[in-house]
Amino acid sequence: MAEKYVYNFKEGKKEMKELLGGKGANLAEMTKLSLPVPPGFTLTTESCKRFLSEGQTIWASLDNEIESHLKELEQITNKKFSDRENPLLLSVRSGAAHSMPGMMDTILNLGLNDRSVIGLAKTTANERFAYDSYRRFIQMFSDVVLEIPKVHFETIIEKTKKKKGVELDKELDGNDLKEIVKKYKEVYLRETKEEFPQEPIVQLRLAIKAVFASWNNPRAVFYREMQGISKLNGTAVTIQAMIFGNKGDSSGTGVVFTRNPLNGDKKLFGEFLLNAQGEDVVAGIRTPNEIAELKVLMPKGYQQLKEAAKTLENHYKDMQDIEFTIEDNTFYLLQTRNGKRTAQAAICIAVDLHKEGKITKEEALMRVKPQQLEQLLHPNFALKAIEQATHIAKGLAASPGAASGRICFTAEAVEAAYEKGIKTILVRQETSPEDISGMVKAEGILTARGGMTSHAAVVARGMGKCCVAGCSEVTINEEEKTLKYKGGILYEGDLLSLDGSTGMVYLDDIEKTKPALGGKFTELMGWVDEIKTMAVRANADTPEDAKQALEFKAEGIGLIRTEHMFFKEDRISSVRRVILAGTVQERAKALGELLPMQKDDFYQIYQVVEERPVTIRLLDPPLHEFIPVKAEEIRQLAETMSLSEEKLKDRITELNEVNPMLGHRGVRLGITYPEISRMQVRAIMEAALEFKIISKIEVQPEIMVPLISDVKELVYIKKEIEDEIKKVFIEKGQTLTYHIGTMIEVPRAALTADKIAKEADFFSFGTNDLTQMGFGFSRDDSGSFISEYIEKNILEKGPFDTIDQEGIGQLVKIAIEKGRQAKPNFKIGICGEHGGDPASIEFFQQLGLNYVSCSPFRVPIARLAAAQAAIK
Amino acid sequence: MAEKYVYNFKEGKKEMKELLGGKGANLAEMTKLSLPVPPGFTLTTESCKRFLSEGQTIWASLDNEIESHLKELEQITNKKFSDRENPLLLSVRSGAAHSMPGMMDTILNLGLNDRSVIGLAKTTANERFAYDSYRRFIQMFSDVVLEIPKVHFETIIEKTKKKKGVELDKELDGNDLKEIVKKYKEVYLRETKEEFPQEPIVQLRLAIKAVFASWNNPRAVFYREMQGISKLNGTAVTIQAMIFGNKGDSSGTGVVFTRNPLNGDKKLFGEFLLNAQGEDVVAGIRTPNEIAELKVLMPKGYQQLKEAAKTLENHYKDMQDIEFTIEDNTFYLLQTRNGKRTAQAAICIAVDLHKEGKITKEEALMRVKPQQLEQLLHPNFALKAIEQATHIAKGLAASPGAASGRICFTAEAVEAAYEKGIKTILVRQETSPEDISGMVKAEGILTARGGMTSHAAVVARGMGKCCVAGCSEVTINEEEKTLKYKGGILYEGDLLSLDGSTGMVYLDDIEKTKPALGGKFTELMGWVDEIKTMAVRANADTPEDAKQALEFKAEGIGLIRTEHMFFKEDRISSVRRVILAGTVQERAKALGELLPMQKDDFYQIYQVVEERPVTIRLLDPPLHEFIPVKAEEIRQLAETMSLSEEKLKDRITELNEVNPMLGHRGVRLGITYPEISRMQVRAIMEAALEFKIISKIEVQPEIMVPLISDVKELVYIKKEIEDEIKKVFIEKGQTLTYHIGTMIEVPRAALTADKIAKEADFFSFGTNDLTQMGFGFSRDDSGSFISEYIEKNILEKGPFDTIDQEGIGQLVKIAIEKGRQAKPNFKIGICGEHGGDPASIEFFQQLGLNYVSCSPFRVPIARLAAAQAAIK
Repeated sequence: MAEKYVYNFKEGKKEMKELLGGKGANLAEMTKLSLPVPPGFTLTTESCKRFLSEGQTIWASLDNEIESHLKELEQITNKKFSDRENPLLLSVRSGAAHSMPGMMDTILNLGLNDRSVIGLAKTTANERFAYDSYRRFIQMFSDVVLEIPKVHFETIIEKTKKKKGVELDKELDGNDLKEIVKKYKEVYLRETKEEFPQEPIVQLRLAIKAVFASWNNPRAVFYREMQGISKLNGTAVTIQAMIFGNKGDSSGTGVVFTRNPLNGDKKLFGEFLLNAQGEDVVAGIRTPNEIAELKVLMPKGYQQLKEAAKTLENHYKDMQDIEFTIEDNTFYLLQTRNGKRTAQAAICIAVDLHKEGKITKEEALMRVKPQQLEQLLHPNFALKAIEQATHIAKGLAASPGAASGRICFTAEAVEAAYEKGIKTILVRQETSPEDISGMVKAEGILTARGGMTSHAAVVARGMGKCCVAGCSEVTINEEEKTLKYKGGILYEGDLLSLDGSTGMVYLDDIEKTKPALGGKFTELMGWVDEIKTMAVRANADTPEDAKQALEFKAEGIGLIRTEHMFFKEDRISSVRRVILAGTVQERAKALGELLPMQKDDFYQIYQVVEERPVTIRLLDPPLHEFIPVKAEEIRQLAETMSLSEEKLKDRITELNEVNPMLGHRGVRLGITYPEISRMQVRAIMEAALEFKIISKIEVQPEIMVPLISDVKELVYIKKEIEDEIKKVFIEKGQTLTYHIGTMIEVPRAALTADKIAKEADFFSFGTNDLTQMGFGFSRDDSGSFISEYIEKNILEKGPFDTIDQEGIGQLVKIAIEKGRQAKPNFKIGICGEHGGDPASIEFFQQLGLNYVSCSPFRVPIARLAAAQAAIK
Repeated sequence: MAEKYVYNFKEGKKEMKELLGGKGANLAEMTKLSLPVPPGFTLTTESCKRFLSEGQTIWASLDNEIESHLKELEQITNKKFSDRENPLLLSVRSGAAHSMPGMMDTILNLGLNDRSVIGLAKTTANERFAYDSYRRFIQMFSDVVLEIPKVHFETIIEKTKKKKGVELDKELDGNDLKEIVKKYKEVYLRETKEEFPQEPIVQLRLAIKAVFASWNNPRAVFYREMQGISKLNGTAVTIQAMIFGNKGDSSGTGVVFTRNPLNGDKKLFGEFLLNAQGEDVVAGIRTPNEIAELKVLMPKGYQQLKEAAKTLENHYKDMQDIEFTIEDNTFYLLQTRNGKRTAQAAICIAVDLHKEGKITKEEALMRVKPQQLEQLLHPNFALKAIEQATHIAKGLAASPGAASGRICFTAEAVEAAYEKGIKTILVRQETSPEDISGMVKAEGILTARGGMTSHAAVVARGMGKCCVAGCSEVTINEEEKTLKYKGGILYEGDLLSLDGSTGMVYLDDIEKTKPALGGKFTELMGWVDEIKTMAVRANADTPEDAKQALEFKAEGIGLIRTEHMFFKEDRISSVRRVILAGTVQERAKALGELLPMQKDDFYQIYQVVEERPVTIRLLDPPLHEFIPVKAEEIRQLAETMSLSEEKLKDRITELNEVNPMLGHRGVRLGITYPEISRMQVRAIMEAALEFKIISKIEVQPEIMVPLISDVKELVYIKKEIEDEIKKVFIEKGQTLTYHIGTMIEVPRAALTADKIAKEADFFSFGTNDLTQMGFGFSRDDSGSFISEYIEKNILEKGPFDTIDQEGIGQLVKIAIEKGRQAKPNFKIGICGEHGGDPASIEFFQQLGLNYVSCSPFRVPIARLAAAQAAIK
C-alpha cells in the first residue's frame, strides 16, 4: 500500500501539527468539535519533503490521493468543479508546524475558469461578485505560481477606473470586471506564452507545487533562520472549499482574538470588513471595523462568533486568534491558533486562566516568553518630556513601547544605519515580509496603512518591537522618501519618536523612563520563585545598579566589575599613576589614594545588598584601557607624575598590546602587580568589617579571580589575598567569613577544572570570554563576519547572544563535571551575558548550575526562564 | 623496627639512584665491582625529605644509624675520629638522583680539629699538609654550613703571603698555616659568637643538615626548574673516608672521560693536578695538566686509571666521567657517571658503542639528545669571514659552535639585554652557579680561568652553548667592566665573537655558515628511519626552504604558508589592491595579477618536492597585516588605485582590529572573499597540472583550510574550492588527485572534531593557535608575563616551546579521538612549532599522529625524537 500523504479534516487532530501544519491540524480539531468549518483536506509536510527531495515533482500516488479527496469534497459540498451551475471553488493555503505569519503564499477562488465563473454568477445571482472573484484569482495565481509582477494587473484596474471616471474598486460593475478578466488573461498569455489554465485540476497541481516550492523561498528561509526553526520537514498544504465573505453586505470576514492581545482584557478583540475576502483584512489594504460593530450589523453572526470563541478557548486553554467568514449570514471558522500577544497581555491572560481554573501555575508560567518581558521592563517616554514634545500624528497602538530614531524608508537603509550604530524608525506605507530584516534592526515601525492585525502589527508584536500602524494622518512617499504631516515634511535621516502604547507620533528624540510593573506581573513572578531551583543574581557595578537588581528580586550580586569603578573622574588620575608608576613606592602611593575610594564603593554596595552574597571580581581588563590617549591628558598626567612627556609616552607605548584580549589582564595583573590585588582585597574586607560594626550585618563577600588558566595562578594569588585579609583582620581585631573563587573563562581552565576546584570555593563561568577563546572570535571584531556567517547559514545565532551548546557548552560541561568530581557540592554560577538569555538559562539548568547572574533589567527575564527551565 | 635511612656502599647498587642519589649509587656499584673506592655510606633522599618536612631536625633513629655506620667506618679504616695518631677524616657530599653540577655543596676533611690535626701531621709526616687541610676544612665548613663570606678567610691568606713576601699558597709553610688556622678560628668565633666545633660528630651533624637544607636554596630550585626536574624527594648525602690528593707530589687528583666528550674519539680525555684536592680541578682555580702526562708522572696510577675506565665503560655501557685521586701512589675512584658530551661526540660514541657490540641500535639512538643536534645543525663562522676577522686571543675550545654578541660582564646584564632582543656574550673571570640564568640567555660564554671540566665548560656543553674557557690571554676586570687583550681594551656592549670549536676569540660580529654533517651522523640518522613510525615533514614557504628540508630527509611539506608569498616586493601592491578594492571587479583584476605569480610559486616548490605530499594552507593572517603604514606608501597606493588618500585611509582604518588574532582571518576571509580562495586554489591546481604534463610527475597537493571553528565553515569553503578545481580540470582537460583538509587550531574545532572529520580528508594541528586560544595567551603579548610565570614557578615551561600536555594536550586528544571515531584511519598531523620539539613529539607519538611538520633545520631533531618516541 502506498504511504498516506493526504488527510481530510475528519482524520486529523490538533496534536498532528508536525504532519498537517498548524492550520491543517486546527481545522481538523475544529471539525472534531463540530464547529462550522468548510470541508477540506490537507497534504502533509511529509509530502512537501518528498516533493522537494524528488526534484519538485508530484508522484502518481499523491495525484491519486488528491483526486479521490477532491471527489469526496464534491460529494460533501454537492458542488462540481467547472460547473456552469454550482461550481466547487477552493482555497489553497500553506501551513507549517510553526506559525509563520505572512511567510507562505495563499491562493483563493481556485477552480474558477471561463465556465465556472458563469456558474458562480448564477448561484450567487451576482455577476459582479463572480467576475471580481475570477480576476482576483487570476491575479493571485499569477503572482504566487508564476511570479508575474502585480503591477501589470493593478495598472489595468487603475486604467479602467480612470476611463470610467470612478475612484473605488467597488464602483466597477460586472461588465467592467468581465473586461478586466479578459485583459488579465491577455497579460497572462503575454507573460507566460500560454493560455491561463482552465482545468481546475491543473490549476490545483500548479498551486500545490508553488506552495511547496515556497518553503524554500529566501523570505521563508530567512524567517526560519531568524526564529531558529530548523528541524521541520516542510509546509503542509490545506485545500478547502471556498466560502465568500465578499458576496455582498450580508457577507464579511474578520480576525478576532478571544482576549485583548495588547493588555489581556477578557473581551473579544478584533476587526472585520463587510463584503471582503480574508486577505483584505490581513493585508491592511482597507481599514477595517472594530469587532463590536459586528454585533450591530450582524447580530446572529456575532453571537455565533462569541460562542465559537468561548468553545475554542475552553478547548485550547489559551487565548485564540480566529479567522472567520460570514457568507450570506452563515458563519464559518477558517482558522484558529494561539494568539500572539504583548508581554502585558501574556502575563494577564496566564494569570487569569490560572485563576479561572483552566491551567496550572506551571502552565501559566510557560505561557509567557521570558524574552517578551523586555517590553515591560524597557523604558517609556518620560511624562514631562512628552508634554514638551511635538505631536504630529496618531495611528493605531499596534505594539507597545517607546522608540526614537532616524527615519528610514527602506529595510536596506535601516540595515545600513544599524551597521553604523545609528538608531532608526522604519517608515513604510505598509510592511511586507521583504521588510522583516529591516524590522528586526529598527527601534520602531510606523506604517500609514493597515490595522491591528496587519503584517506590521502582528510581526512587531511578535518581536516585542514598538509599532504604530495604520497612521493615515501622514502621507508617506517611499519613492521621494518623504513623510508629510499636517504642518510639515520629514526626510530620511530626520528624528522621529513613536509611542506604541498610545499610537502617538512625535518629532525628535524624546527622553524615556522605566515602566511601573503591575500587580499581575508581581503575582506571576511570585509563582516563579516558588518553582525555580536556580538562583538569579545580578551583575552590578554601582549601588544604583544593585538597588535596581534587588527591586527585580535578584538574590545577590553575581558580578561586580571593579574596574568600572576605576574609570570615574575623581580616580582615573590615581589609577593612571598606579599603572604608569616607575617604582614600587610611586605605585604604593597612588594605590594608597585609591584605597579609600574603592572601599567606599564597596561600602555603599554592601549597604544595599546587606547579607546577600556579593561576588567581587578583581581587576580584569588590560591596563592600557585606562591610559590617556589625548595629547592634553598625557601632558597633564606627565605633570602630575613629574615625568617628561617623552617618558610617559614610552611607557604608554610599552603597554600597548597586539591582542589585548589575550594579553596582560585578569589574574596576570594580580601576579605581576600583587599590590593592586592587595589594595582591592583590603578595600573589600575593610569595608565589610566597618559595615558589620555599624550595622551588625555580615556581608558575604566572594572574591573572584578572573582569567585563571592554571591552578597555580590561583594558588599564587590566593596566598596574596589571604595574607592581606589576615593583616586586615588583625588590624581591625575582627573577622568575617569570605570565599575565594575563580572565573572559568579560559578553555584551559575548563579542561583542568578538577585541579582548580580543589583550590577554589566557587566557580563562575565567564561565557563571553569562553566563547571568544573557544571560537577564536574577538567580540570587538567579529561583528563583520558573524553577520555574514548567519546570512550564509554557517551560524544559526550569534554565539555571544545564546550560548553555543555544541562547542562552548562542552567546555562548560567538562568544567562542571570535573569541578564536582573534585568537590561534589561545589557552587557554580555564570556571570557572562548568557546569564540573561532564556535559551542559555535552560541549558544551564540542565547542567545543574547553582545560579545565573545577569544585568539588572534582565533579572525578571532570567527568573522566569529559570522557572520554565525547572518545569521542563 | 625503625625505617632504614642509611646504606653503606656494599648495600647499594647503581639502580638505587632515586634513593641514594647518583653519587651514592655509583660509589656502591663501583664497590660491588671491587674497584678501589674509599669506604663510606649514604643517607638516603628519603631522609632528606623527612628532614625538610620535619622542621629541619635530625630524629633519634637517624642519629643512631649514622653513629653505627661511623663505627663501622672506623673499624674498616682502622682509624679513629679525633685521634692524635691516625684520625678518620670524612668527605660529605650531596647527590640527587639527577646530576646537578655545581648546584649542591661539598665539605672535605671533616673530622679535623685541634687534636686530629696533630694525628694527621703524624701519619702523613707532613705538618704543612695537615694544617693546610685543617684551614681548608674551616673555610669550607664556614662557607657551606654558616655562610660566612669567603673573603674573610681569603684576606687572611693574602695578608700572610704579603707579610712573608711570597706569591703562591704553596710557598707558605706549616707554621704559616698553623697561624692561619688560628686566625680562621677567630673569624669563626667573631662571626658566629661560638667556638669552631671540635667534636667530629657535631661537625658531621651540622654538615648533613646544611647539605639537606641546600636542596631548597634558590640556585638549586632554579636549576631544577630550568631542567624540568620536579618529582625528586631531595638530595642524598654521601659520607666517605677522606683520601688525600694533596699529600705531596706522589699524590694528585683528576677528572677523566673514558672517551673524548668533544668529538667522541675513543681515548681517555681529561686533566689532573698533582698535589691537589678534587675541588681544585673542578673549580678551575689552577690550570691542570692533560691526562696523558699522568702516564709519565705516575705510570702505575695511569695504568690503574686506564683499567678502571675500561671496566666502568664495559659495565655502564657508556662513556664515563670519572673522578679519581691518587694518595701516596695509591689509586682511588671517587665518582663515576655518564659523561656529558657534545652532539658530535654523542653521535660518534653511540655509533661506536653499537659497532663494538655493547649496545643495540635502539640504545644507541636513545644516547643522543635530539635537542643537542641543534649544535651540529647550527652555523659556524664562514671561512672567508674568519680570514678577515681580527683574532684577539685563544682559550680552550670548551663547547663547540660559533657565537657573536655584545659583551656583558654579569648575568643580570645578559638578562636585561635579552629582554630587549640584544644578543650577548657573557664574559666572566670564571662562572659559578649564580651565573646560570645568564648563561642560558647568552649566545656564548668566555671565561679567563678554568679548564675543560670547569663549571663554565661543563654547563655550556650541557646546554649546547658555545663556550671558550680558560682564556688566560685576556684580562677581565668584572668591577671596571673591561676586557683587556694584547693591543686593546673592550667595554660592556662591545661586539665579540667566539668559536667554541677552536677556542678562538675575535672582535666584532662574524658571518656564519651552516656546518657539514659527518658520516656517523648519516649512519645514525639511517637507523632513525628504520625505527621511527611517525613521518616527519617540513614547514617551507619557498623552494629554498623545501630543498633544505629534503636534504634533511623531510618526507614531504607539512605547511606552506601562502601569505608569506604575498609579502614579496613584486606582488605586495597587487595584494593591497585585492584587499582594499571597492568593487568585486577591482578585486578580480588585482587577483588576476596575482594568479600567475602564485602559480609560479607553487610550480617551483613542486619541482623540488615532486611526488611527496605537500600541504598548502590558504591565506590565513588578518588582512591588515598587508596594509601599508607609511604615509608615502599610502600615497603611492592611492595613486595606483585612483583613489583619494582620504578614502584609502578610511578603508585602512576600517580594517584595523582590536584583537586581530581572534578577528577576520583564516577561513573567515575565504568565506567573506571566496574569490581570494578561488584564486589560490586555481594557482595550486593549474601549477600541478602543468607540472604533471611537463614532468609526468603527479604532485600530491593537500589544500588546507585554516582556523575552522565549525564544520559548516568547511562545508561552505569546500564547495567553493571544489567548484574552482572542477573548472580548472575542465579547462585543462586533465585531473589530479587532491585532498582538502583543515587545521585544528581553534578549541571549538577540537571539541567538534567528529563532525569536521566527516567533511575533511585530513587534520593538521596548529598548536600555536590552539595554545593561544586554549590558554588565552597572545603570543605577541605574553612574553612579559610568561617569563614572570616561570620565575614564580607558575609555569614550568613556556607553552609555545613545549606543548602543555595537561590542558592543550586534552584538546589534541579529544580531537584525535573524535576524528578517528568518525573516520578510523584518518590522517592527522601537526604543523605548529611544537612539531620540532622533542618532548612534544613524544606526546604526539603516544597520541598516534601520522606526522609532525617543523622548520627545515629542526627536521633531523624531529626525526631523532620520533625514533626515540617509537622506541619508548
